[in-house]
Amino acid sequence: MAIALDAMGSDHYPEPEIQGALMAAEALGIEVILVGDQSRLEPRLSVLNTRNLPVSVEHAPDVLEMADKPVEAARLKPRNSMAVGLELVKKGTAEAFVSAGNTGGVMFNALRVLGRIPGVARPALTAMFPVRGGHCVVLDIGANADCRPEFLLQFAIMGSVYAEKVLHKPQPRVGLLSNGEEPGKGNQLVKETYPLLVKSGLNFIGNVEGKEVFNGEADVVVTDGFTGNIMLKSSEAVAKLITDVLREALMASWRTKLGALLAKPAFNHIRKLLDPSEVGAAPLLGIDGLVFVGHGRSDARAIMNALRVAHEAIQANLLVNIRDALKEKLSNLETSTPENS
Amino acid sequence: MAIALDAMGSDHYPEPEIQGALMAAEALGIEVILVGDQSRLEPRLSVLNTRNLPVSVEHAPDVLEMADKPVEAARLKPRNSMAVGLELVKKGTAEAFVSAGNTGGVMFNALRVLGRIPGVARPALTAMFPVRGGHCVVLDIGANADCRPEFLLQFAIMGSVYAEKVLHKPQPRVGLLSNGEEPGKGNQLVKETYPLLVKSGLNFIGNVEGKEVFNGEADVVVTDGFTGNIMLKSSEAVAKLITDVLREALMASWRTKLGALLAKPAFNHIRKLLDPSEVGAAPLLGIDGLVFVGHGRSDARAIMNALRVAHEAIQANLLVNIRDALKEKLSNLETSTPENS
Repeated sequence: MAIALDAMGSDHYPEPEIQGALMAAEALGIEVILVGDQSRLEPRLSVLNTRNLPVSVEHAPDVLEMADKPVEAARLKPRNSMAVGLELVKKGTAEAFVSAGNTGGVMFNALRVLGRIPGVARPALTAMFPVRGGHCVVLDIGANADCRPEFLLQFAIMGSVYAEKVLHKPQPRVGLLSNGEEPGKGNQLVKETYPLLVKSGLNFIGNVEGKEVFNGEADVVVTDGFTGNIMLKSSEAVAKLITDVLREALMASWRTKLGALLAKPAFNHIRKLLDPSEVGAAPLLGIDGLVFVGHGRSDARAIMNALRVAHEAIQANLLVNIRDALKEKLSNLETSTPENS
Repeated sequence: MAIALDAMGSDHYPEPEIQGALMAAEALGIEVILVGDQSRLEPRLSVLNTRNLPVSVEHAPDVLEMADKPVEAARLKPRNSMAVGLELVKKGTAEAFVSAGNTGGVMFNALRVLGRIPGVARPALTAMFPVRGGHCVVLDIGANADCRPEFLLQFAIMGSVYAEKVLHKPQPRVGLLSNGEEPGKGNQLVKETYPLLVKSGLNFIGNVEGKEVFNGEADVVVTDGFTGNIMLKSSEAVAKLITDVLREALMASWRTKLGALLAKPAFNHIRKLLDPSEVGAAPLLGIDGLVFVGHGRSDARAIMNALRVAHEAIQANLLVNIRDALKEKLSNLETSTPENS
């Protein structure tokens, strides 16, 4: 069982990828194929991999950079490390692909190389939101700015399978992001999605607002890619504002500096809560293959965690479970709709 | 110049309202008409108002509570304090209305009693977001879940006038909330609104994301009421999660407790940043009268600040300025559209 890792993805590629791959191979016994520029990867790997861990290199001459426009870049650089890595999954040489690179680039290449799971209207980007007591799977966070109710239903089914099989949450609680908890609240999309989720057979807990999400009351939250992206970016920005202002205020006097020193364990708590490297990576759901995207700022530990998550998805047979759940829930819905409406 | 204050609005009514009214009358020379249950207000006022400040009572027998459904409640309780207070504005007895009550209730009553400014398609709820270096006016944050591009254009015009005339920001920077800064990013609504804002004659700075908003790079941010509400509630929830987790972690040991004590001035900084009572209240824009809504948790100081803001809006001739700006910008747009397209 091998995982293809984009060696040219993170902001500081390829060092975090090389180190993270070796850590995952050593600690978790994962076989990793580093995909990227051979001339940069092999010399470094031969110095570091003194214990001959199962980490190999697959050459990809091109790099899709963070600032690149995904569609153009993928066209101009067909042998970029994402495309080459995804082809390893297509061929069955690898069972999953992991990248800490340009999310739009991964999505575009994944759609082109692996395509969608049959029956899936739109694949979704997911994010693991830090919430009280753990994490919450939120989707879509940016792949589909305009959605239809059926898309959100599919997101809910896929997110629920992911939460159950990979995050080991039995009967995941699925919430629909809205501007009010009461049924009937929401924009047109939410109002039309609500009855589909009620009939879906999922553990649908109704509409949720920010309060419920960050209080850890849902395991999966579905929304359109525009709203999800706004929620993600706003949350990150608020967290940054608060921690920045606090840091500056703590540095303002000797008294507060001393206080900060003593209170350090508490601040570490916050840092850990907000640290994306704890999560590693989030899946692209709806792609016909296991594809995970990590944060651009990933360090070696984040890469190792990303590989761990991909490994768990392989072991959980995620793709088969998603295919089966889509088939079952969507056919249930088709047969139940005429009776209930 | 008198301001009608809903005396039965805040979570702990009428005490914060009575105290806040007296503070505003004393410190700012504002004449306040407390609107609410005479039998509760007058005895309390006669005890407290020993200096005979210009604070009077207008009787309203009903209360529209926080948990009430606005439309039903307004129908069942036609003499609620909001309706009575807004009628004072309608009659010219008061020049503005302030409430810390049920926002939907204020909006519903305001639409019924005062109506819309001629030409305004939809009035908007606004919120003052705490951002780096001050506050940002965000609208709509919940009145209109589904919007059309023209609504957002009107929000932008009204928000810009408010930022300029009441918050004293020359040439307010107007941003369009989107899932990406580049022009062309966004959902259908954003893509269609963008060119209207370009041609509006406003100081339009383009699409903004959470990062720009909380970094204080825009004075006014426009969005539909669904997305705005999600951003508002998520931001509040993230701030609460971080401060709660930090507080709990600080209480975990003697060392961190001592640290917290020494670092208290820094924590006060954060508290002040997130404290809605600093802002007082936010306007309903598009209503044909000056109407302000404060936070349900308002204390006396928050009520005083709400009255101060309303007072500034009166002095700035906000309503006339909004009417003029709408007339000017919208007619500009009509004449410029054929040439530019």
